Amino acid sequence: MKIAILLYEDMTALDAIGPYEVLSRLPDAEVKFVAERAGLVKTDTGFLRLSAEYSLSEVPEADVLLVPGGPGDAAVRRNEEILGWVRGIHEGTRFTTSVCTGSLILGAAGLLRGLRATSHWTQLEVLRGFGAEPTGERVVVQGKIVTAAGVSSGIDMGLRLLQTIVGDDFAQAIQLGIEYDPEPPFDCGSPRKAKDHVVQMVRAAMDGAYA
Amino acid sequence: MKIAILLYEDMTALDAIGPYEVLSRLPDAEVKFVAERAGLVKTDTGFLRLSAEYSLSEVPEADVLLVPGGPGDAAVRRNEEILGWVRGIHEGTRFTTSVCTGSLILGAAGLLRGLRATSHWTQLEVLRGFGAEPTGERVVVQGKIVTAAGVSSGIDMGLRLLQTIVGDDFAQAIQLGIEYDPEPPFDCGSPRKAKDHVVQMVRAAMDGAYA
Repeated sequence: MKIAILLYEDMTALDAIGPYEVLSRLPDAEVKFVAERAGLVKTDTGFLRLSAEYSLSEVPEADVLLVPGGPGDAAVRRNEEILGWVRGIHEGTRFTTSVCTGSLILGAAGLLRGLRATSHWTQLEVLRGFGAEPTGERVVVQGKIVTAAGVSSGIDMGLRLLQTIVGDDFAQAIQLGIEYDPEPPFDCGSPRKAKDHVVQMVRAAMDGAYA
Repeated sequence: MKIAILLYEDMTALDAIGPYEVLSRLPDAEVKFVAERAGLVKTDTGFLRLSAEYSLSEVPEADVLLVPGGPGDAAVRRNEEILGWVRGIHEGTRFTTSVCTGSLILGAAGLLRGLRATSHWTQLEVLRGFGAEPTGERVVVQGKIVTAAGVSSGIDMGLRLLQTIVGDDFAQAIQLGIEYDPEPPFDCGSPRKAKDHVVQMVRAAMDGAYA
């Protein structure tokens, strides 16, 4: 199972690393971290750099494509070289996936027209501009296109993919292996559950980051 | 808030990136990824390299120390240079923390004697060798030493730390910002909840990785 994970400047690390940690445990996984040019990629906080071992042209195909999100998505949506690569890989994938605002990149590549899709909750309406119908679900499966909501949702998406690819027992073993028995300190991880003033705090911060 | 995250060969990426993604969003966060020698660090799958921007001697102090786990913990537990650094940093921390088998490294550094602590569920008994009392809890707070269970638990630990450091509102905003409203596909993330044969699958895999 060939898994290609796109990296780009100012992406959010957990968007990629959550599903990577799950999918890389497939017995036949071969994971390639890919960027426009191979080398170190600075993530959105400025504190962490991930190593892209491959440039786009070195990875012409994959069974699973994963596109993470982050404030850098805006530049990627204007980058025809990366968008063309996404379209090309998508032709041969078994699953084309995104986490957070990675779905806006799939949208800019023209892959979401007429489909239901999700994204970070603050950016859902942007999906309409790409002909997609935004939903507030955490993981949205539309044929082979699978979009996940904000940042941490990629772990849930990865496990859902594993369930489809190798079945319940193996997916459960991976979930147990990463001890994914969440105990969030608050029940506020969705705008439907959080207090109004907390929702406004996040909207203000995101408006700054995604301006 | 100075946050030092230890990186080492054959660590598990999500152990570090989960809490990093939470703690780095503190308004005054200054996160340093530190390894024995600065440079690229290969994680346990062999597919991903993280960039350690600093070597040990360049980071003599921190407010929060985070030690991730992974199969590489065994070599670190025999590495007096790293253990000495952990002890030194710990003297001045506000919180000394670990995820997964990172607690075995804290144990080897002599920091867990007489304390309750947790680790990956397959490795809990190893803690006794360091004079610690293993518990099956997801996050264990003992004064300024905070240990978390396997891999994904670092996200919960990071949010708990934020709650202590900056209070409920800000911690809730971060939880909502990373849309941490988990929907695991199965209720099997703890050995108490998983089916017996799934528990055995993971034990066998971990015995191989941690042999």
